Amino acid sequence: MAAAEPKPPAGVAAARRLARGCWSAFWDYETPKVIVVKNRRLGVVYRSVQLLILLYFVWYVFIVQKSYQDSETGPESSVITKVKGITLSEHKVWDVEEYVKPPEGGSVFSIITRIEVTPFQSLGTCAEVRPKYEGQQRHLQLGDEDFVAGQLDMLGNGLRTGRCVPYYHGSSKTCEVTGWCPVEDGASVSQFLGKMAPNFTILVKNSIHYPKFQFSKGNIEHRKDGYLKHCTFHEVSDLYCPIFKLGYIVEQAGENFTELAHTGGVIGVIINWDCDLDLSASKCNPKYSFRRLDPKHVPASSGYNFRFAKYYKINGSTTRTLIKAYGIRIDIIVHGQAGKFSLIPTIINLATALTSIGVGSFLCDWILLTFMNKNKVYSHKKFDK
Amino acid sequence: MAAAEPKPPAGVAAARRLARGCWSAFWDYETPKVIVVKNRRLGVVYRSVQLLILLYFVWYVFIVQKSYQDSETGPESSVITKVKGITLSEHKVWDVEEYVKPPEGGSVFSIITRIEVTPFQSLGTCAEVRPKYEGQQRHLQLGDEDFVAGQLDMLGNGLRTGRCVPYYHGSSKTCEVTGWCPVEDGASVSQFLGKMAPNFTILVKNSIHYPKFQFSKGNIEHRKDGYLKHCTFHEVSDLYCPIFKLGYIVEQAGENFTELAHTGGVIGVIINWDCDLDLSASKCNPKYSFRRLDPKHVPASSGYNFRFAKYYKINGSTTRTLIKAYGIRIDIIVHGQAGKFSLIPTIINLATALTSIGVGSFLCDWILLTFMNKNKVYSHKKFDK
Amino acid sequence: MAAAEPKPPAGVAAARRLARGCWSAFWDYETPKVIVVKNRRLGVVYRSVQLLILLYFVWYVFIVQKSYQDSETGPESSVITKVKGITLSEHKVWDVEEYVKPPEGGSVFSIITRIEVTPFQSLGTCAEVRPKYEGQQRHLQLGDEDFVAGQLDMLGNGLRTGRCVPYYHGSSKTCEVTGWCPVEDGASVSQFLGKMAPNFTILVKNSIHYPKFQFSKGNIEHRKDGYLKHCTFHEVSDLYCPIFKLGYIVEQAGENFTELAHTGGVIGVIINWDCDLDLSASKCNPKYSFRRLDPKHVPASSGYNFRFAKYYKINGSTTRTLIKAYGIRIDIIVHGQAGKFSLIPTIINLATALTSIGVGSFLCDWILLTFMNKNKVYSHKKFDK
Repeated sequence: MAAAEPKPPAGVAAARRLARGCWSAFWDYETPKVIVVKNRRLGVVYRSVQLLILLYFVWYVFIVQKSYQDSETGPESSVITKVKGITLSEHKVWDVEEYVKPPEGGSVFSIITRIEVTPFQSLGTCAEVRPKYEGQQRHLQLGDEDFVAGQLDMLGNGLRTGRCVPYYHGSSKTCEVTGWCPVEDGASVSQFLGKMAPNFTILVKNSIHYPKFQFSKGNIEHRKDGYLKHCTFHEVSDLYCPIFKLGYIVEQAGENFTELAHTGGVIGVIINWDCDLDLSASKCNPKYSFRRLDPKHVPASSGYNFRFAKYYKINGSTTRTLIKAYGIRIDIIVHGQAGKFSLIPTIINLATALTSIGVGSFLCDWILLTFMNKNKVYSHKKFDK
Repeated sequence: MAAAEPKPPAGVAAARRLARGCWSAFWDYETPKVIVVKNRRLGVVYRSVQLLILLYFVWYVFIVQKSYQDSETGPESSVITKVKGITLSEHKVWDVEEYVKPPEGGSVFSIITRIEVTPFQSLGTCAEVRPKYEGQQRHLQLGDEDFVAGQLDMLGNGLRTGRCVPYYHGSSKTCEVTGWCPVEDGASVSQFLGKMAPNFTILVKNSIHYPKFQFSKGNIEHRKDGYLKHCTFHEVSDLYCPIFKLGYIVEQAGENFTELAHTGGVIGVIINWDCDLDLSASKCNPKYSFRRLDPKHVPASSGYNFRFAKYYKINGSTTRTLIKAYGIRIDIIVHGQAGKFSLIPTIINLATALTSIGVGSFLCDWILLTFMNKNKVYSHKKFDK
Repeated sequence: MAAAEPKPPAGVAAARRLARGCWSAFWDYETPKVIVVKNRRLGVVYRSVQLLILLYFVWYVFIVQKSYQDSETGPESSVITKVKGITLSEHKVWDVEEYVKPPEGGSVFSIITRIEVTPFQSLGTCAEVRPKYEGQQRHLQLGDEDFVAGQLDMLGNGLRTGRCVPYYHGSSKTCEVTGWCPVEDGASVSQFLGKMAPNFTILVKNSIHYPKFQFSKGNIEHRKDGYLKHCTFHEVSDLYCPIFKLGYIVEQAGENFTELAHTGGVIGVIINWDCDLDLSASKCNPKYSFRRLDPKHVPASSGYNFRFAKYYKINGSTTRTLIKAYGIRIDIIVHGQAGKFSLIPTIINLATALTSIGVGSFLCDWILLTFMNKNKVYSHKKFDK
């Protein structure tokens, strides 16, 4: 602080003297005057509070939470998958090409476990299904308004012709429609492919990259021998053999395979790369977890299914086989967080720690004033010097 | 601070005395000596500054920004979609299997609204299209260099045979090429499927998981009755009925449906899960927004389209129907941020707040020295005790 | 601090006097008493330490690390891709529809560069391949156990009939199986499509959105002329022309094209949007990088391939052409970080800076006590007032 002159005389000389004074004062060193309170009880309280704060920072902030690290979440990730295995329905053998959709081996794919096939559909006219609402079957008495020609029911299968025709099974009648005929609900046949499905193997090649730290790693062993031909994943002994049996995945997700194979469902394979990059790269390992992702208990629209078709030309006219496929969709989800020592968070946390230890002094002042016999010890000492 | 001994005598006794002194001094309590300036004006300024800083921290940092929370962005997310509805072109009825690509019900899918069909393509020779550059039609006088056999134009349709043949329409001639014939531009027929498309319904099942807080939630109502059969999404009354009409999505994104259906485009359905996990789970709700994602005003390559084909064998030779599909691609994008009370950010922010209130004292000193009648009040009081 | 009354008399008057005293004391201003140490050497050390800390904060924390900004990582992103070009195998011309899978133009797609075709497969019986283990061919002497009828080898091609039949080539015999026949390994023919593939062009339309800052940008030039028809990407001169040659991408990723086209592989095109939103939007530019993503040196399961089929009906029975496709999968990965000035990090960092400069004083005290001739200068001055 500039030493204030009591009576500044006017003129250049005074200004110069002031400047010189300021300059000189700038190089002075100031330190607060302190009072030393020679009270052992107070000292113990003071140091204990400081110790607690110090412990909190050293143990929790620095060791547990690793607050001295800069961190990055959401690594760049690439996933390649490959399913192997064959299965049987009642009539035929199914190979990977048929039951895995889409075939490209990306991070999301479905393994079909049950199908409802409607073969030989072609564009023509046929009986519409009766209006069906899952959960509450409405048995409608067909009235005139149901036969209006040219009407299009958004949840139906085609354009109404205006006629009334017998239904596929039973003696009732329904509206006739123009569209892909026969309609799915009237003519489909169910086939179960899931018998051998628990033994399908799924290879999940995943490599991640943390751009901030220029760190890359993959989840696969680099071994010359035929290790990857025979191994299956095990959390401890075969962590770097990312070959999973479908049954294992479903079991780890806590689901019943047969039930899941009938209704379909989505299972997430979550790969977690939590890495402390201050340690060696070999300490940065993937952690796999498995969880069912679709809502299981929603009565309407539970499970997972989709429709696809194969188109044929027979004698010049187009025919298709419509397939409603129930399956187990596997979503490979990769996330993670990497941390590495960095100056800024370290300094911010250190400064916070030091400030907080200073808070200890503030707390002590408050304790002193409130609980201690302050008149005897404190105020006596405070003004005695 | 260790009380410094004036003249430390040599020898063990002195060292011991010093150590004892240090130890004793360690348990002393120190507090800065303060000067009390009994000036009401200065006190008001001082307390006002402190109050302002306190208000800023309590209101903005802690209440508005929730800086006492630890946060996590980018939840693990799983999306299952299902489109329902049928539509008409001039000649036929189209169902979901035909107009949704890919069919698996993932987070990105296209609803085809217009197609250009090139039927009965087979491998053979035919006339190449004339070199066409959108925006600047080049009317080339065909020269000899255009007929070089074996040449391959990367943007053309095949390998040049070296002959010159009449074009599909009109009297002009073009190069002949070997490839899938006839070529698309010469023989394709346009069909519009978008008439009923605004009434298609899209069910979006989304479940998220914040791994740091072990919190999961879905966007769908768990109700036993047939609620999900009849409802459509409404931001207030039906937030947990994620069934959207395609027309609603396009309208919310601020686009004209007919125009979009002709050129194709990409619409993002953004689901935002911003959750304060200190509150109950029922306060953590999805927020939907809709935005066009592809660049609308880029003259070249605007809109969205892709090509796929259906392959047939007719009398042993392969024929295909090439389809250039314009459509509305829906990208379901899920993001979010969750926050929950945590000690570290709370303490860092508290320490910062306390430090900043201390800064109030510093500011006051500065005001005092600069503006107040310091000689009379301050320096008088400062050194009087 | 409340001025403590030495002997508080009982009664209301005393309480009132105490309250009045407290109220009065609340508006007092307190400032620590300081000692001015007029030592030039110490002052220089003190100011230098402060200067160093100040420089660190101004330069590193505020200028380099931009700690005054609030940041957001992981923008919402949408990617549309379009591949153009035709190529030749020995027998035929291939267009985009045939070699790009899936066709929808999303952020992950494969360009097929080599195929192994198994034409005319139908459900029937044929010879199984001999058990093959890549890397270590096992020449098994077929025993009785290999012919058990009804056995299903998960890595084989069908259900064993129990018979022993001659293999496709050579004189050896293998088990007979029921399945899609003939099996792939016995009857497939290889075709190489990659000759012209380096010249394929890939258009990558990407638009991003930072929801926290309401900032959107695309990677494509908005120009009216035919610029996008002719340009190819160049990091400096054509940054906003996102049209890449496949050969350029592979070269930038440091791979050999021919080798990659034979074995298949995954190349990541990483688009990085690091934006300082305090500057103008034109300073926020995409940065492209290219990297091979699949593990290259894993002996088993290296490269990238997948299987798909085309189904035909010939004379009422189903036939398929199975295609094992090796290709270059392109993963467009978008990430980025945006920062914008925000009060909270600024204040936290400022408070940390001020605290740290205060630490300078603490350091000086320590230097003073340890190294300086403290008895002469310091303790003399400390207690002199």
